[in-house]
Amino acid sequence: MKTMKLLIPTQKEVPNDAKIISHQLMIRAGLISKLASGLYSYLPMGVRVLHKVENIIRQEMNKSGAQEVLMPVAQPAELWQTSGRWDKYGAELLCFADRHQREFCLGPTHEEVITHLAAQYLRSYKQLPMNFYQIQTKFRDEIRPRFGVIRSREFIMKDAYSFHLDQASLQQTYDAMHQTYSNIFDRLGLDYRVVLADSGSIGGDASHEFHVLAESGEDAICFSDGSDYAANIEKVSFSKQEKTCQSITTEERILTKKQTSIKNVARFLNVKKSSCVKTLIIKTKNGFKALALRGDHELNEIKIHNLFGDFEFATDDEIKNLDLKKGFIGIKDLDIDLIVDYSASVLCDFVCGANEWDYHLMGANWQDIEFVDADLRNAVEGDDSPDGKGKLMIKRGIEVGHIFQLGTKYSSIMKANVIGESGKAVTTTMGCYGIGVTRIIAASIEQNYDDKGIIFSSAIAPFQIVIVPINYNKSTRVKALADKLYQQFIGVGIEVLLDDRKERAGIMFADSELLGIPHRMVISDTHADNGNVEYKARDKSDKIEVIFDDALSFIQSKLI
Amino acid sequence: MKTMKLLIPTQKEVPNDAKIISHQLMIRAGLISKLASGLYSYLPMGVRVLHKVENIIRQEMNKSGAQEVLMPVAQPAELWQTSGRWDKYGAELLCFADRHQREFCLGPTHEEVITHLAAQYLRSYKQLPMNFYQIQTKFRDEIRPRFGVIRSREFIMKDAYSFHLDQASLQQTYDAMHQTYSNIFDRLGLDYRVVLADSGSIGGDASHEFHVLAESGEDAICFSDGSDYAANIEKVSFSKQEKTCQSITTEERILTKKQTSIKNVARFLNVKKSSCVKTLIIKTKNGFKALALRGDHELNEIKIHNLFGDFEFATDDEIKNLDLKKGFIGIKDLDIDLIVDYSASVLCDFVCGANEWDYHLMGANWQDIEFVDADLRNAVEGDDSPDGKGKLMIKRGIEVGHIFQLGTKYSSIMKANVIGESGKAVTTTMGCYGIGVTRIIAASIEQNYDDKGIIFSSAIAPFQIVIVPINYNKSTRVKALADKLYQQFIGVGIEVLLDDRKERAGIMFADSELLGIPHRMVISDTHADNGNVEYKARDKSDKIEVIFDDALSFIQSKLI
Repeated sequence: MKTMKLLIPTQKEVPNDAKIISHQLMIRAGLISKLASGLYSYLPMGVRVLHKVENIIRQEMNKSGAQEVLMPVAQPAELWQTSGRWDKYGAELLCFADRHQREFCLGPTHEEVITHLAAQYLRSYKQLPMNFYQIQTKFRDEIRPRFGVIRSREFIMKDAYSFHLDQASLQQTYDAMHQTYSNIFDRLGLDYRVVLADSGSIGGDASHEFHVLAESGEDAICFSDGSDYAANIEKVSFSKQEKTCQSITTEERILTKKQTSIKNVARFLNVKKSSCVKTLIIKTKNGFKALALRGDHELNEIKIHNLFGDFEFATDDEIKNLDLKKGFIGIKDLDIDLIVDYSASVLCDFVCGANEWDYHLMGANWQDIEFVDADLRNAVEGDDSPDGKGKLMIKRGIEVGHIFQLGTKYSSIMKANVIGESGKAVTTTMGCYGIGVTRIIAASIEQNYDDKGIIFSSAIAPFQIVIVPINYNKSTRVKALADKLYQQFIGVGIEVLLDDRKERAGIMFADSELLGIPHRMVISDTHADNGNVEYKARDKSDKIEVIFDDALSFIQSKLI
Repeated sequence: MKTMKLLIPTQKEVPNDAKIISHQLMIRAGLISKLASGLYSYLPMGVRVLHKVENIIRQEMNKSGAQEVLMPVAQPAELWQTSGRWDKYGAELLCFADRHQREFCLGPTHEEVITHLAAQYLRSYKQLPMNFYQIQTKFRDEIRPRFGVIRSREFIMKDAYSFHLDQASLQQTYDAMHQTYSNIFDRLGLDYRVVLADSGSIGGDASHEFHVLAESGEDAICFSDGSDYAANIEKVSFSKQEKTCQSITTEERILTKKQTSIKNVARFLNVKKSSCVKTLIIKTKNGFKALALRGDHELNEIKIHNLFGDFEFATDDEIKNLDLKKGFIGIKDLDIDLIVDYSASVLCDFVCGANEWDYHLMGANWQDIEFVDADLRNAVEGDDSPDGKGKLMIKRGIEVGHIFQLGTKYSSIMKANVIGESGKAVTTTMGCYGIGVTRIIAASIEQNYDDKGIIFSSAIAPFQIVIVPINYNKSTRVKALADKLYQQFIGVGIEVLLDDRKERAGIMFADSELLGIPHRMVISDTHADNGNVEYKARDKSDKIEVIFDDALSFIQSKLI
């Protein structure tokens, strides 16, 4: 195609709200345009990239034997009420009423609908396993949409849902999806890691995330420096530790006027945060609980949820009613259950609150304290790897894929049963598998750019090659050669862009570099004098003179 | 692919709510599944058909030079407030508030968004014309969703919007889109008609509709039996007629107790409905108006809207306050403007209300009555064609495409200007072009079915051919031959379905016929004894014996 016939609105200005490079470059290269907070239009170049990503995903999903379906974006409330997620999903679920005041939501995910379909249409164990997928617009009403299409409100997702007679069959499809996802991300040219993941609100048993490594990633993922272990920080689990210290001091009550944060207390008392214990109060369906952690550790809310179910942090008033002193709560005089994180529970002679206004204890110890120990915290860099091999490092990742073993969470509630081999009804076992399609474009750019712009791989670039003629409108020779090459490329199915604008060479170069087109051929009178064209790869700095008559075969060899 | 690995839930039962054949067959053949009123999931076979339709549309749109974009489904209220459609569009516009209480709608169409984009990115006349399209999920909150995917609430549309420097350029793209649509519907194998259309709420100047002819169609379209004239019934316009009769009776006041409808009055007085005049009262922004039509004619609300703007029918109370007698209103004693339809205005000695309870006038005439004549009515069969050639016939049609000349309706409000050749800002002139993608599947079935099921054309069938082996699981010879043929077909890219179920031949035949697969090959021991396979085309009744070794080339010749 020719540039003059296309809308490629490149721009130099960096949009104010674009904090990360992919967001900046997608706007600057004219791939997307912001319509409203978290809502983006895909312009012609963006659509070309999007279709390439979709096609790779579709091809690999089809190859795996999955069947494509297309479910509605609007989903009736009844299904979500049946699954129990209508109330649980939270404010990200965008709900609305139709003209007859019937309630619906814009689907952020489709477990309910597909399970409803399975309950209707899957009858016999002979039909299983089946894996259904769709590539479809989803909506999540993010409280703070950000990072362009990475955390937008409307986005395209490939979601798949598999149904099985038993866990062994699920495991087989789960493994196959693991492989399919690897094939997809390999073909997309992404540097990614597969990590153990928490399954969040979708529920279920096992799950893995596929992360594209990038500084701007919102997720923290932990790797062992001594093994293959990799997990989302939320999923890293710790075991009971052995106590290696002994108490050598006696407990002392110290005035710590107005020092209520661990940071301030540690500085005031000149101790390390890791020698302090902080106590948090939560409200669960079984009453209030006190949670104690090392001062340098963060609570892992998912672990707390797994232990106690839904919970909230106690309010100031509730803490007061428990006769506790906020900022000075310790480990003594608690009339509620105390749960201590494994790493806090092996400390000796630590600092903690005295449960008295303006006082902390130094040299505190666990003896005589009634408590339960448990795994309550997030990993930090330097932790021992849970597999016992090496220490943990933490990197940032952008989640682009997620596979889950759902088990019977939805199929049992929604009665997705089949007649088993024995003639009795069997509840199907489910897996589900998501890929953030639009997010992949951004993730790919986060990994492949330079100061000139995007560096797309051939697999997803909007065009494979750009022909830049110098003086296309003035030199009949240049025009003739450029048109000839253009026709040659089109003739063999190469996706070629011919920059037919009356722009300076510098502008044409800059635009194609910003847009990340992987290959460039320049045709000028100077080059033509030598019977050559000039070739440059987007990701290399050197320019090569190529004999004009060899240009086609030269490019074909690059595109293999 | 093999049937056992696919979800093709055929059924014999006709769903209760499926009134028309395409709806019944799409459910029965397992193409779609109803999720809620007006919301359908596309099952694997439905998605295959849908993609084929989409691809034909995409190919032809690309060929025309249109550029594909993808705009959000959710659209901010502000844009619709700017265009004035937020309040005007009516209850079909599904509106909702996000978690921050900002208002949005689910887009039923995208004029506002694309014009907003054009205002941002189109700068110079040199960029024009440009034509943008998308293939996307749309939502229209139909009060009474019906006919399956023909009038569903969520549906897929191809919508395109073009921008021009002037009317001449618009006309050129409009004509090109007319041709592109014809190419698309030709390739889809549809029997369609292009008719003059009213542009409805989208507004603008010229428009044509593309209708698939079908008994079940919701639209009435008029054709001349003496020329190429074709128009949506709403668009057929009539001119002033010459009066050819003379009054021969005197006016008489007749008791017509309780006879308030034209039908009853005509029967009671033993006259034709076409010899009666009925009077309707409407309320406009310029007060009440009386409209008089021939008793056998229907009011055309669009024509009334074009004459008076927004209007409503007067309520019983309002009629009473005007001192008129509902059911007996005539043409006299009206204190409001009287507008008479051209065909009513040339009547002589007609029947009309006496504006007195239980009385009509016979032998009424227009002399001494003050009125304006105008075109107020819908066409009826037998009307003279507006082009003066032949009489009008009326057929039913399903609208599958619509092209509009929008003019500057949106571009002027939303400031989609470019710098013209003279250096001054010029408001762009717009066209818009829609195709109901999902609706096409149903429309195609309405034209191509028999008592066994759907008859898909090769262009959109879910598979091109089905291989039905008899005793696939018992006869090793049959299995070997079927597998061999299957591999041969796959090898050359033919989309083939192998029915590998342990079902009776009759069931396998019935299912593939219901699903409308265009070609079938049966492999059995009997045929194999003769070195043959049996071939049958879905749309023919005869069966042909084909030499096994020639089967591939035989099918290839059918698929050209």
